[in-house]
Amino acid sequence: MGRVTVRRPVLTLSAQGERHHQDVLAGEEPLELRVGGAPLAVTMRTPGHDVELAHGFLLSEGVLGDRCDVRVARFCDSPRTDGVSTYNVVDVELAAGVAAPGAGVARNFYTTSSCGVCGKNSLDVVRLRTRFPPAADPITVTPATLATLPDALRAAQRVFDTTGGLHAAGLFTAAGELLVAREDVGRHNAVDKVLGWALLAGRIPATGCLLMVSGRASFELVQKAVMAGIPILAAVSAPSSLAAELAADAGLTLIGFLRGPTMNIYAGQHRVDH
Amino acid sequence: MGRVTVRRPVLTLSAQGERHHQDVLAGEEPLELRVGGAPLAVTMRTPGHDVELAHGFLLSEGVLGDRCDVRVARFCDSPRTDGVSTYNVVDVELAAGVAAPGAGVARNFYTTSSCGVCGKNSLDVVRLRTRFPPAADPITVTPATLATLPDALRAAQRVFDTTGGLHAAGLFTAAGELLVAREDVGRHNAVDKVLGWALLAGRIPATGCLLMVSGRASFELVQKAVMAGIPILAAVSAPSSLAAELAADAGLTLIGFLRGPTMNIYAGQHRVDH
Repeated sequence: MGRVTVRRPVLTLSAQGERHHQDVLAGEEPLELRVGGAPLAVTMRTPGHDVELAHGFLLSEGVLGDRCDVRVARFCDSPRTDGVSTYNVVDVELAAGVAAPGAGVARNFYTTSSCGVCGKNSLDVVRLRTRFPPAADPITVTPATLATLPDALRAAQRVFDTTGGLHAAGLFTAAGELLVAREDVGRHNAVDKVLGWALLAGRIPATGCLLMVSGRASFELVQKAVMAGIPILAAVSAPSSLAAELAADAGLTLIGFLRGPTMNIYAGQHRVDH
Repeated sequence: MGRVTVRRPVLTLSAQGERHHQDVLAGEEPLELRVGGAPLAVTMRTPGHDVELAHGFLLSEGVLGDRCDVRVARFCDSPRTDGVSTYNVVDVELAAGVAAPGAGVARNFYTTSSCGVCGKNSLDVVRLRTRFPPAADPITVTPATLATLPDALRAAQRVFDTTGGLHAAGLFTAAGELLVAREDVGRHNAVDKVLGWALLAGRIPATGCLLMVSGRASFELVQKAVMAGIPILAAVSAPSSLAAELAADAGLTLIGFLRGPTMNIYAGQHRVDH
C-alpha cells in the first residue's frame, strides 16, 4: 500500500528566496465500507489500519459491540485497469444474529428519514443509544497524569512529523500508559481506528481508559467515546457546545485545552483527582 | 437564534490552582437540509448563515450553479415541544428545470451505488464535474499579497477569539481585499457558507478570487473551490495528497503552510508572481 505518505514536488517561497523540492504529504484516499457486500459509507481517510477503521466505524454507529459480532472483514478485490489493487474497499461480514445497519446508520452524514431533526432538541436528534454507558465507571485520573498525555500522543505521531497534516487519537490507561495511537487526515477516522483496535483486542467496553485527541472535541468524537464505553475524553483544543452537553448528559468526563498542567474540565469533574 | 456561542460552567486547573467559571464554547447543532421538502443531508454546524450554508452545499455538490437555480430557501417551522423553533431545518425549493439531487449528491458521505470505489482510481471515484473549470483563469497574485491573508482572515474571526473552537474561510480578491469571512465548527461548513454567500451575491463562478482556509487543505476543500470556479486556494496548514492531486488535475493553484512571507505552492505556480 505505502500511501500513508505521498511525495510531491513543491515550490517554497520565503525570505530566503525560492526552492523547488519534494514534499511529503499525508496520504488521503477514499475508503468504501461495505457490510455483507452492500455499500454503506465512503470516508476520505489516510490508508492504513483500514480493517480497524471499519470496525471502529461500525462500533461508533452501534452495529458492533464485540469482536465476535464480525465473522470476517477483508479487502475486496478491486484492481484498477492497470491491475493494481486499490485496497480502498473493506467488506465486513457480520456474525449470525447481528443486525445489519439500517438506513439510519449513516445518520450523521445522510438521512432519508421523513422526520429528521424537525421539532426535536439537537441532542435527541443525533444521539445514539450506547450499550456501554460510561456514567458509572469509577475510574479516576490525576492532573499530573493528564499533563503527560499530549506529549505522549505527540511522540507517537510518526507521520505528523513528516507531513504536519494528520490528526491523532490515543487510548491510554488511567495511569497514563499509551495502549494505541493512530493518525489520519480525518479526526473521526483517527478515533475510529483506535476504537477498532480496542474492539479487535477485546477491550470494548473500554472501561478505565482515556481517549486523547490532538485537536478539538466535537459532538461526534464525544459520541464515539460514549459508544465505546470510554469514561474520559481529553482534547488539546476546544470542545463545542454540543460536545460538552452530550458529555454531561452521558456521564463522560470531558477535558479541553489540555496543555501540560493546565486544563479545562467541562463535565465529569469527579473523575479528576484534584 | 443566538447559539453561535454557548456559555457553560467549567473548572480550570493550572499551576495557579483551580477556578470555577463560565466558559464560552462554539455553538454546534445539527442542520438538516431539505430539497423540495425531501431530507437530503444533516451536518453538524455552528448556527448562523444557514441559508448560505445550504446554497454553498448544493453548489459544492453540483446541484446549483447560479442563485436563479433556487426559487426560495427558508427555515422550516420546527417548534420543539416547548414551542421554541429550533431553526435547524432549511428547505430549498429549486427553480423550474433544475434537476433535484439524486442519491449521488451525498456521495462523499454515503453511497448506495453498486459500483462504489471498487477498481477505480481515487480521483475518479470522488471527483465531481464542475461547470466552472478554473484552469483558464488568468488571475495572478503576488507573494506580498498572499502574505497578508492569514492575518486578514484571523482578524475577521470574531467567534474564534472567544472560543478558540472555530474554523474559518474567507474569499479575497487577488489584490487581497476580503469579500467575506465565515466561521464554523466544521471546516467544510465554513467554506460552504462562503460559497453560498458568493452564489447569493451573483459572484459564482468566483473567477479572479482566492479562497483562504484556517486549517488544512483536504481533498474536499479543493473540490469545493473547483466547483465554485475559484482559481486559488490557500491554507494555513498542510494539504493532503489527494488535495494536491486534484488541484494539479483541475488547474487550481494550491498553496499550503501560508505563514506570512513563507509558503508552499503545490500546484498552479504560474498564478503566483514570484
